[in-house]
Amino acid sequence: MSTWLPTLITSTPEEGYALAIILARMAVKLTQPDPEIRDRLRPEYSEDAEALISVSQVVATHFATVAAANGYWKDVS
Amino acid sequence: MSTWLPTLITSTPEEGYALAIILARMAVKLTQPDPEIRDRLRPEYSEDAEALISVSQVVATHFATVAAANGYWKDVS
Amino acid sequence: MSTWLPTLITSTPEEGYALAIILARMAVKLTQPDPEIRDRLRPEYSEDAEALISVSQVVATHFATVAAANGYWKDVS
Amino acid sequence: MSTWLPTLITSTPEEGYALAIILARMAVKLTQPDPEIRDRLRPEYSEDAEALISVSQVVATHFATVAAANGYWKDVS
Amino acid sequence: MSTWLPTLITSTPEEGYALAIILARMAVKLTQPDPEIRDRLRPEYSEDAEALISVSQVVATHFATVAAANGYWKDVS
Amino acid sequence: MSTWLPTLITSTPEEGYALAIILARMAVKLTQPDPEIRDRLRPEYSEDAEALISVSQVVATHFATVAAANGYWKDVS
Repeated sequence: MSTWLPTLITSTPEEGYALAIILARMAVKLTQPDPEIRDRLRPEYSEDAEALISVSQVVATHFATVAAANGYWKDVS
Repeated sequence: MSTWLPTLITSTPEEGYALAIILARMAVKLTQPDPEIRDRLRPEYSEDAEALISVSQVVATHFATVAAANGYWKDVS
Repeated sequence: MSTWLPTLITSTPEEGYALAIILARMAVKLTQPDPEIRDRLRPEYSEDAEALISVSQVVATHFATVAAANGYWKDVS
Repeated sequence: MSTWLPTLITSTPEEGYALAIILARMAVKLTQPDPEIRDRLRPEYSEDAEALISVSQVVATHFATVAAANGYWKDVS
Repeated sequence: MSTWLPTLITSTPEEGYALAIILARMAVKLTQPDPEIRDRLRPEYSEDAEALISVSQVVATHFATVAAANGYWKDVS
Repeated sequence: MSTWLPTLITSTPEEGYALAIILARMAVKLTQPDPEIRDRLRPEYSEDAEALISVSQVVATHFATVAAANGYWKDVS
């Protein structure tokens, strides 16, 4: 059985950040499952300054969780 | 007696994310108990980019709580 | 002397969620003590999608605090 | 020398909540030091549903800090 | 070499709160380095209720960080 | 292989703050990869008070993460 979120553990901070973006997008997908409506909404937020900042805020919240899960990657350098 | 929230512990990160979505929706239900009004409001946020991002923010906050409760599922892989 | 917030400790996650809702509402009561004005404002947020999501965000923040206070109810199941 | 914030430690959760409200208001005072302008703005947020929810969010964030500082008042009951 | 942020450690909660305000303002300065534009924007937020509350939210987030850094000043009283 | 985020560890709080700003901007870049559109949006937020405060909020959230990762730089002074 495949899953979209098998683990919060990543090798590097950068992969952790990529995971935070996936986590942010997944809530949108689950709240609005229709891909056509999502496609229609995309320009609304990807070309709007305030919306882009709001996306950035959601990513920041998830990144905090992923970073904590990974012990802040203190052994990576 | 059945409850909607028996525990914060889940087997996997993905189930934890699903729980975060339930936690986000429950506040809406308890603040607006009338299902007809909620149905009327649904298109307002499910077809609006900013509102979807805001929902995503609430889910992120709950996911942080659920992830901490589960020790970030470090033993899952 | 009775108090509205004797403790953050609850028996179950669900009671903890109910407490988070009380904590969210109390700030509104203390900022706007006039019950008539609050009654007038109620439809503004209980029938508005964005406002309901914002309420949900406040509840999520308080729930994080209550959950941490209760050690995430790990012994409950 | 008197101070407005001698400590984050309070005897009870309720006093901690009151402190969270003080912490929220202080940022407004320090950003807008003119009491006349603040008085003029008061109706704008105390009679507006969205603004009251936003105030509630700030209080929630400070309450999390105060609660952590007090070990969640686990010995109080 | 002088720096604007040599340390997060402060003697008292009140100094910690002052530091949180500096931390909040610095992001604005670094995003909009032109002091003339910032001066032009100042009335927009210092005389607007919603903007003042938003500033207060940013300060609350930084205060949480500074308070944690200082072990919540538990030894101060 | 070069990366934009090799580590969350910085020498000083100030470098940590600079990293928080990079983390905030990266979500915008990854959500809107077209540099021309981003350039067009820049004045929208860098000359708008509310948007600048929102940027400041994202930075605050990332700074909390970076500060925790660095043990709040307690050994720096």
